[in-house]
Amino acid sequence: MDSRDEMYGRFSVALAKLEACKEFAALIPEVRTNLVYATGDAKERSDVLAVEGRVTIIGGMPHASGKPVFGASSHMARLMIELRKVDPRVRAGVDFANTPALAAWLEDYCREKRWIFSMIDRRNEPDSIKEEECASMPWKVAEAVRAAGNRAPKIFYETGAIGKEPVSVLVGGDPIEVVEQVCEIARRYADER
Amino acid sequence: MDSRDEMYGRFSVALAKLEACKEFAALIPEVRTNLVYATGDAKERSDVLAVEGRVTIIGGMPHASGKPVFGASSHMARLMIELRKVDPRVRAGVDFANTPALAAWLEDYCREKRWIFSMIDRRNEPDSIKEEECASMPWKVAEAVRAAGNRAPKIFYETGAIGKEPVSVLVGGDPIEVVEQVCEIARRYADER
Amino acid sequence: MDSRDEMYGRFSVALAKLEACKEFAALIPEVRTNLVYATGDAKERSDVLAVEGRVTIIGGMPHASGKPVFGASSHMARLMIELRKVDPRVRAGVDFANTPALAAWLEDYCREKRWIFSMIDRRNEPDSIKEEECASMPWKVAEAVRAAGNRAPKIFYETGAIGKEPVSVLVGGDPIEVVEQVCEIARRYADER
Amino acid sequence: MDSRDEMYGRFSVALAKLEACKEFAALIPEVRTNLVYATGDAKERSDVLAVEGRVTIIGGMPHASGKPVFGASSHMARLMIELRKVDPRVRAGVDFANTPALAAWLEDYCREKRWIFSMIDRRNEPDSIKEEECASMPWKVAEAVRAAGNRAPKIFYETGAIGKEPVSVLVGGDPIEVVEQVCEIARRYADER
Repeated sequence: MDSRDEMYGRFSVALAKLEACKEFAALIPEVRTNLVYATGDAKERSDVLAVEGRVTIIGGMPHASGKPVFGASSHMARLMIELRKVDPRVRAGVDFANTPALAAWLEDYCREKRWIFSMIDRRNEPDSIKEEECASMPWKVAEAVRAAGNRAPKIFYETGAIGKEPVSVLVGGDPIEVVEQVCEIARRYADER
Repeated sequence: MDSRDEMYGRFSVALAKLEACKEFAALIPEVRTNLVYATGDAKERSDVLAVEGRVTIIGGMPHASGKPVFGASSHMARLMIELRKVDPRVRAGVDFANTPALAAWLEDYCREKRWIFSMIDRRNEPDSIKEEECASMPWKVAEAVRAAGNRAPKIFYETGAIGKEPVSVLVGGDPIEVVEQVCEIARRYADER
Repeated sequence: MDSRDEMYGRFSVALAKLEACKEFAALIPEVRTNLVYATGDAKERSDVLAVEGRVTIIGGMPHASGKPVFGASSHMARLMIELRKVDPRVRAGVDFANTPALAAWLEDYCREKRWIFSMIDRRNEPDSIKEEECASMPWKVAEAVRAAGNRAPKIFYETGAIGKEPVSVLVGGDPIEVVEQVCEIARRYADER
Repeated sequence: MDSRDEMYGRFSVALAKLEACKEFAALIPEVRTNLVYATGDAKERSDVLAVEGRVTIIGGMPHASGKPVFGASSHMARLMIELRKVDPRVRAGVDFANTPALAAWLEDYCREKRWIFSMIDRRNEPDSIKEEECASMPWKVAEAVRAAGNRAPKIFYETGAIGKEPVSVLVGGDPIEVVEQVCEIARRYADER
């Protein structure tokens, strides 16, 4: 297999695991979830594999609306590309809901796992950046890294800005690992609430 | 056909028309679109037909993630039920994007069509209501009606609250009519920008 | 609604009922099922609404592979057009499995319902016709009508030719009626075996 | 990845390649195509990965009706299990159309490729076997192997029995390889006719 086929295979396995995790449905935000997987030298959106149409909820289960396609994501793809400038080992990511209760729980969970946790306070975002959607991603990633003590975080979230649903993001080296981690979070959080 | 079958038939026709309107894809918000159709005596969510998993974008076209199901919508279904208390002729609705540019354009468009246009300024929302998601719908509908001079509006939108994507809503008596109207908006707006 | 929209609506209702009938899954043949609905003046394939990709089985339930599309069927569409030359009240049809046991059961069932039952014995088919797929439909319909005493049958089946899976066909004036009838057959046959 | 995940990944890559091959749509038989992938020690149907609902045609392209699922195939899974008794290197297979013209072309193609080609003449099948569907697979595989000079064939087909559509089968060690081979056949055959 060439490397894009290899990626497609791992991504398909990861996506099937995500679709099989009932508890994750409760963590899908209004904007829906995406799962992304960047090539080892990703420079632009078309280098990032994602689910076309995002992952929604059908019959109470996570459900990929479309197929895995390179270039299918904009927001999460740009996030990957920026974050990889700080830590090139990061290749995959998934976004999910964020509420104050979940954010507090995640902070404890990350402490237990010894994972770096961070937060982007969009109230700190300069106005000049807010106005242009594409300009805000470098700032957001820089802020998440800065707030984590100049390290790439494992999990981070944004405080909601006006008109923007806050989401949490979990990143890692591989989409299967990332999905297994977010599904464990979904199951633990469902149990403990 | 019994009346739920009749509704399912009209809804399917409407949804096929929405999926065939390429220009509407540009108006699908981050939270995705839903199309809803309430029974003539809708009292609760299960009386409102909607698309399970909402309408997303695949291959550049609007695409229903799942099938039409009674009870598939929460937010838009509650909106229908509240609005029908003011104007029971309202049976169907569709939500779509909102930006300052689109809102201004829609206001002009409504004037041209002699449609009632309204706006919900969520900065006016009492804090006691904001805290509980389900409590805010009666306030929102009341506010949209009040701001339109105590009349049910044809199109209205919310100014974004923190963490909430602003959306526009168009309502009417029938889902086919509502889809034809929102598709005309999508085509006109694409032409004129 | 124009008449094609009206057809699309009734067809969607019929298809949803077929997909909800678990017992029908046992009657889906290897070649898969199609449901067809002809316009009142159908002359060619593009005048017949059918399921693109046919109806298959997913999770033990009948499942439409694609959407209703005018022109999606070849075989069943040609059958409709030919049969309508004999009885223009026929507008809809559905094909399903055929085994010797089911054929015998259907014959009894038709007697009980006072429905005309017929059979096409493809061993009678002239060799000149067999060679060309499209030529055989007029012969098949003529044979089904002849064997039923020069009347359009309600249900008929073909005895298998070499290389051709035998199927049963049920026809009627409307796709919802036709689906309700074939689902009652599926449920009764599942009960009585 | 555990070995079933690894299989799922390779199968997903193979299936995406099959769905992207327009020319293969012309080779999908009435009974639809399946792609299968057996575990290294497959003993029963549940050890064979296949497409739930088979591969049909939507918009002129091959289209998987459902997802890859272990146990989703009956016929092709049993074929794999039998053939692996003769040649355990065989792990994957795909079935496709068979016509006299295609069969003759395939025979030449196999000669060019130095692939073993075989044929199952179902007129030779003992009546005692024909009556029971599950009993015929061991006979069919034995016949294909016998007719190839006691070797497992690369491509073989069945002559049509009464009520059975004849299909061709291509097998190999891996689903991606098998799909690439059958797609090359589809493209070459489309070019040369």
